[in-house]
Amino acid sequence: TVAIVGGKGGMGRCLAQLFADLGPAVLIADLDTELTPEQAAALADVVVISVPIDVTEAVIRQVGPRVRPGALLMDVTSVKTGPMAAMLASSSASVVGTHPLFGPTVHSLQGQRVALTPGRGDEWLAWLRGMLHARGLELVETTPADHDRVMAVVQVLTHFTTEVMGRTLATLGVPLEQTLRFMSPIYLIDLLLTARHFAQSPDLYASIQMRNPQTPAVTAAFVQAAETLRTIAQEQDYDAFRALFDEVRAHFGAFTQPALAQSDFLIDRLVERT
Amino acid sequence: TVAIVGGKGGMGRCLAQLFADLGPAVLIADLDTELTPEQAAALADVVVISVPIDVTEAVIRQVGPRVRPGALLMDVTSVKTGPMAAMLASSSASVVGTHPLFGPTVHSLQGQRVALTPGRGDEWLAWLRGMLHARGLELVETTPADHDRVMAVVQVLTHFTTEVMGRTLATLGVPLEQTLRFMSPIYLIDLLLTARHFAQSPDLYASIQMRNPQTPAVTAAFVQAAETLRTIAQEQDYDAFRALFDEVRAHFGAFTQPALAQSDFLIDRLVERT
Repeated sequence: TVAIVGGKGGMGRCLAQLFADLGPAVLIADLDTELTPEQAAALADVVVISVPIDVTEAVIRQVGPRVRPGALLMDVTSVKTGPMAAMLASSSASVVGTHPLFGPTVHSLQGQRVALTPGRGDEWLAWLRGMLHARGLELVETTPADHDRVMAVVQVLTHFTTEVMGRTLATLGVPLEQTLRFMSPIYLIDLLLTARHFAQSPDLYASIQMRNPQTPAVTAAFVQAAETLRTIAQEQDYDAFRALFDEVRAHFGAFTQPALAQSDFLIDRLVERT
Repeated sequence: TVAIVGGKGGMGRCLAQLFADLGPAVLIADLDTELTPEQAAALADVVVISVPIDVTEAVIRQVGPRVRPGALLMDVTSVKTGPMAAMLASSSASVVGTHPLFGPTVHSLQGQRVALTPGRGDEWLAWLRGMLHARGLELVETTPADHDRVMAVVQVLTHFTTEVMGRTLATLGVPLEQTLRFMSPIYLIDLLLTARHFAQSPDLYASIQMRNPQTPAVTAAFVQAAETLRTIAQEQDYDAFRALFDEVRAHFGAFTQPALAQSDFLIDRLVERT
């Protein structure tokens, strides 16, 4: 039996489907279910915490003590340091942290990635790996601290960049339809991803940014980079612009060649479709 | 006969192929050809200026007087106000400005877009439309001023955003390989487009940014948006973050729904491939 605390949210429903497809009975507890999170936790072999980041640690502290010692307690939060410490402290059950690196609206789980931070207990860890592999998911195992450090780039920087782009588009006020007449494939992809970002819940993105301890360093570096590039454009400083290109190319290194082929592929698919 | 001034550059070769496939004889003039731009211009029915933005107007002033009055003078520059004025002033030939909204390395021209700014002469304009349509290109006709205003968003803002993202990645110094282990499809697409951008010639991008009269307004709005979002994260101001999401959603309006479907499609293709 798998209990999903927060099972009526987007990711909660996605996980309920994932486990139900593979055999286990699934119990759903949420704010408006008769079954309380504590009751569900006491009944289940596996307890999954799938609630908003800002309440994750509080829910873990409330539910953790009810999880049976022989059971598995796991979460699906986008930050890992805080929730992992809370799960290990509030229960004596096996503990695994997970972070699905995709949204609940994804078409197919096949090939999507999940970050795993093992906490306590090898048997449940092996079981969970097997369940996720069975649905075609790829697993990346790491520590909570490393996870949060890398996610400051993979999530915080990516989201922040998209948000700055969106806000700038809105404040410049050139009507979207006018720009679409002239769109290049790259501009279209940027717009698609920006519109997609802002179509989702702001609260999840707010929490990912506000809860990651590296966010101040990432946003400071971003603002500094924007100022640098603005000055280069103002001063028509071609040499500084070329030097900046060299620096970023060096960062990408051997990734560049496959990136050209993969981006060609994406652009071709997009052009075929539109 | 079509003469391509700058015919050995990337876009010059692309255009030479385009015209050669459709019948006309193609003359190539470039810095190291025996045939000079002036000689080629005097011989041809159609003279295409395909040189770096920063020298476009100078080359037009040099070549324009040699273009025969019954011929067509056209350019392929990413800004249109300056080159159009130069073409109309330096020759009495028919004039059409073009801006191919794709790079010369694109796989197929089918469905790609070209901005056209008609200048003088209806017959050559009709001929050019026919040639470009025959290769599956989509044409968007406009004035030079409107073209440059919209391109401040479609090109300047898009490129600037990618450059700030790339510079921030390089300065943060988290190794790329570490982040790739945890990549989400969205992060991968961002990385592919960023690596692609920096793999290309900095000089073209520098000129597009430095020659567009709207660049100071665009970069100022961008820096302001970055500061606003940084402050929101620092102050954990969820209300301001939600209000910003509402504002950007309103800007995207009815574009959001198709954007969700199109971005789902792209993500699916990418996941299938990787």
